[in-house]
Amino acid sequence: MQSIQIYDSTLRDGAQGEGISFSLEDKIKVVRKLDELGISYIEAGNPTSNPKDLEFFQIAKTLSLHTAKLCAFGSTKRCDTAPETDSGLLALLEAETPVVTIFGKCSLLHVAAILGVTPEENRRMIWDSIHYLKACGREVIFDAEHFFDGCIEDEDYAFSCIQTAADAGADAVVLCDTNGGSFFDRIESLTRKAVKLISVPVGIHTHNDTDMAVANTVAAVLAGATHVQGCMNGFGERCGNANLCSIIPNLQIKRGLSCIPEENLSLLTGTSRYISELANVIPDAHAPYVGSSAFAHKGGMHVDGVLKNSKTFEHIDPSRVGNDRRFLISEVSGRSNLLSLIHAYHPNATKSSPETQRILDRLKQLEYEGYQFEAADASVELIIRKELGMYTPFFELDHFNVMANEPKYNEFSSSAIVKLGVGGQYQLTVAEGHGPVNALDKALRKALETFYPNLKSMRLTDFKVRIIDGSRATEAVTRVLIESTDGTQTWTTVGVSSDILAASWKALVDSIEYKLYQDQNSGKN
Amino acid sequence: MQSIQIYDSTLRDGAQGEGISFSLEDKIKVVRKLDELGISYIEAGNPTSNPKDLEFFQIAKTLSLHTAKLCAFGSTKRCDTAPETDSGLLALLEAETPVVTIFGKCSLLHVAAILGVTPEENRRMIWDSIHYLKACGREVIFDAEHFFDGCIEDEDYAFSCIQTAADAGADAVVLCDTNGGSFFDRIESLTRKAVKLISVPVGIHTHNDTDMAVANTVAAVLAGATHVQGCMNGFGERCGNANLCSIIPNLQIKRGLSCIPEENLSLLTGTSRYISELANVIPDAHAPYVGSSAFAHKGGMHVDGVLKNSKTFEHIDPSRVGNDRRFLISEVSGRSNLLSLIHAYHPNATKSSPETQRILDRLKQLEYEGYQFEAADASVELIIRKELGMYTPFFELDHFNVMANEPKYNEFSSSAIVKLGVGGQYQLTVAEGHGPVNALDKALRKALETFYPNLKSMRLTDFKVRIIDGSRATEAVTRVLIESTDGTQTWTTVGVSSDILAASWKALVDSIEYKLYQDQNSGKN
Repeated sequence: MQSIQIYDSTLRDGAQGEGISFSLEDKIKVVRKLDELGISYIEAGNPTSNPKDLEFFQIAKTLSLHTAKLCAFGSTKRCDTAPETDSGLLALLEAETPVVTIFGKCSLLHVAAILGVTPEENRRMIWDSIHYLKACGREVIFDAEHFFDGCIEDEDYAFSCIQTAADAGADAVVLCDTNGGSFFDRIESLTRKAVKLISVPVGIHTHNDTDMAVANTVAAVLAGATHVQGCMNGFGERCGNANLCSIIPNLQIKRGLSCIPEENLSLLTGTSRYISELANVIPDAHAPYVGSSAFAHKGGMHVDGVLKNSKTFEHIDPSRVGNDRRFLISEVSGRSNLLSLIHAYHPNATKSSPETQRILDRLKQLEYEGYQFEAADASVELIIRKELGMYTPFFELDHFNVMANEPKYNEFSSSAIVKLGVGGQYQLTVAEGHGPVNALDKALRKALETFYPNLKSMRLTDFKVRIIDGSRATEAVTRVLIESTDGTQTWTTVGVSSDILAASWKALVDSIEYKLYQDQNSGKN
Repeated sequence: MQSIQIYDSTLRDGAQGEGISFSLEDKIKVVRKLDELGISYIEAGNPTSNPKDLEFFQIAKTLSLHTAKLCAFGSTKRCDTAPETDSGLLALLEAETPVVTIFGKCSLLHVAAILGVTPEENRRMIWDSIHYLKACGREVIFDAEHFFDGCIEDEDYAFSCIQTAADAGADAVVLCDTNGGSFFDRIESLTRKAVKLISVPVGIHTHNDTDMAVANTVAAVLAGATHVQGCMNGFGERCGNANLCSIIPNLQIKRGLSCIPEENLSLLTGTSRYISELANVIPDAHAPYVGSSAFAHKGGMHVDGVLKNSKTFEHIDPSRVGNDRRFLISEVSGRSNLLSLIHAYHPNATKSSPETQRILDRLKQLEYEGYQFEAADASVELIIRKELGMYTPFFELDHFNVMANEPKYNEFSSSAIVKLGVGGQYQLTVAEGHGPVNALDKALRKALETFYPNLKSMRLTDFKVRIIDGSRATEAVTRVLIESTDGTQTWTTVGVSSDILAASWKALVDSIEYKLYQDQNSGKN
């Protein structure tokens, strides 16, 4: 099986995407996870433009990685400095990574308009920088910035730049479609020409501005490129970089090219979602291969077809990339992991045992009412407990009142009163909040924390509201999804009602009860 | 300029996407909007599998469309019926659309496993169905389902099916990558072969399961296909259909192929966002061409470069597709139709007049706070009135109180008190509702209807809630979009606040005031 080197830039080019940022701790976690997946190179920061990245590299070099080599990213040296005194190159060396990646200009427009140097000076900057980094013992990857656009302006000049990089000792020369405007046919022919001319491995780096970054990458590989740069989940500036979560299975499953160890392919979906979580980006449900909808069947004919023979409407078996098939008529019937959830409470349950059927019926009934359990495993566990008779409420609600006023009395527009009891002891609390749901949440916690101090470690991290059927307007059914964390674990619960407050209450109570059961199991309360 | 027929399936294949559904009224709006954009064909429903779609077609045929032809979608007839008695074909005719699109099988696996008929019987079903629909005077498009997968199993058989369709009189034969697993190189060579063999126009229909639907479509067009099927925003089952918002500018701007009238290209971004709003789907910020991040520059070097020369980091001028360049220091809104809205109130306003600037500044400020005006023209009109000093409130709120209780006293969980005045006369009303927003809405109308009886004809038809920044959980900012109708007109308003009640109140008040101004203009009150 021919090998393709996968070069991940999630932590550098990916982090340029709008709304994406990683803390230092997140970056370490991402590096570990990508290493587990079997990525060859991890571009983890730009110490020349971001001094904080140097701190990261200090910690990163103590990690013992299995497959991945860390890369520091920067540019060729300035025109007017010697390499050994160039602050950029020195910062790259200071990162002490085995690999240094530098980009250099291959477009005459950029050489003139951005650098303001002559074409010859630019080539010298490329040569000097690579030669110096090689002399310092680094593996050097050269990113030929704007290579494809540069070829439109002056193909000979663009090729002379990559030839210079190869001559100077670069270990790989990567052709970049920096503005993302190229089509696969040009990328294929120019890559083929580069592979013929250049004696070192040729790589490809594309952006998604024409919605074809993945195809553009595949086209370059079909033309002989053996090094592929991209980002997990297609993160990146503007429309994103080429999506490694699509490229890896495309090349490995469909073209027989080895990108990561075969046994790791099934880690792909989990890795994708883990990195979305760390970036605080909602995972794209419709993402190819790894999205939660990627193998979800809604059309009646498609569901029938897949039930008869999964190949009729699936291009690969979802388990190969660690994903699941789902049927959206009855959302539940396709939950392959339902039985495994039941096993945690009832180890002998089978697909046909009456308990399983009862739980399934209950879930279907709730889904019919508008519940959605795809992302709400914590609520599913509580339903399993309830159907198996393993549920005792942690508190008893006497009543709540929520009041909202306009004009406001102060910064808070709403207040809530909650009275609840635990073992016959009652607590009456009141709280103000930004809106009725917030006030209710605060009053509920205030009351419960006196009985369950562990709840202080818990907080809501996300709150999603969706009107399910808009036809009755403000009387429509509301679905509330709440995500909570206690710093270690994260879980999601769901509530549905025609009343947004009642829906929120259900999801809040589920969230708290889930936490209390978790603590009970681990002996914390 | 060579022409490509664009065939939009947002309302049919797009609506198969998880989480996507359109009300009847939404569908009419989408049809009008796509027609304005200049789409050639609109596939608007499947009357054979969804009886509600027949109701839609009854209304749709009264629309006078400029460029678009409506298409009803269904399958070839059953094996054991005659075409003139086949319930599916009859439902397609009953839709009374100028165009009927039917899909038929081209894969032996499907013919055997799904239909359970012989290969010859399948071909006869194709022939009979097309021949009958043509005899009934319809333009007939044949979707060759699973064509590319079928070619792997038996290329001769797959080609014999499309030959049969062409022989039977189909006006176009569309090659479908139904499972979305194909690569552009195979799609290109098989399409080239089909174009050579078949005497009618050849089309392409791809899905995005390998993240290459757009490239696969482009490859087919480069091989001679002249009919392109896809969905706005790439909506669709699993990973979605080929994204027309990317394909149209790719072909038209970059390859000189005419897909829609050139002057309409700048409507693309607005159309994309409008349809996302109607589908209650968060627009993909990173979508090529039309996403809010598509021309957003974050990296320092990129911002500098674009300021020096926009071509250095932009593959096209964003205004060509109605999008805007953004530097991620500040949010900027560029509503191309803003001036035309202002002209209704201030005929002499220009792009640079101080009124226009003031309105723009106000809109920018509100967008910064989380407002979104793409689908809320009624709120924009009220803002224009306010900035031009042409606004007088229709009532004065004294106060409102909303109360919610658990346990409930009756079927309604919430009640609201509203006190408001018109011309010094005050009304104090109370109403119960399903949840606090519903109660508030009812009490407000009850109070206002005594002053403005016309409001009795008005009702809310849709109510959408979106949490904009989930990071503060229940304290996050909430955006409420309300759609209202008085039976003749439909309009949408928007409100934003950290409090869902306050956000709803703003959108409700805008909705009512917009209606009252409309009636004032037409002399109704």
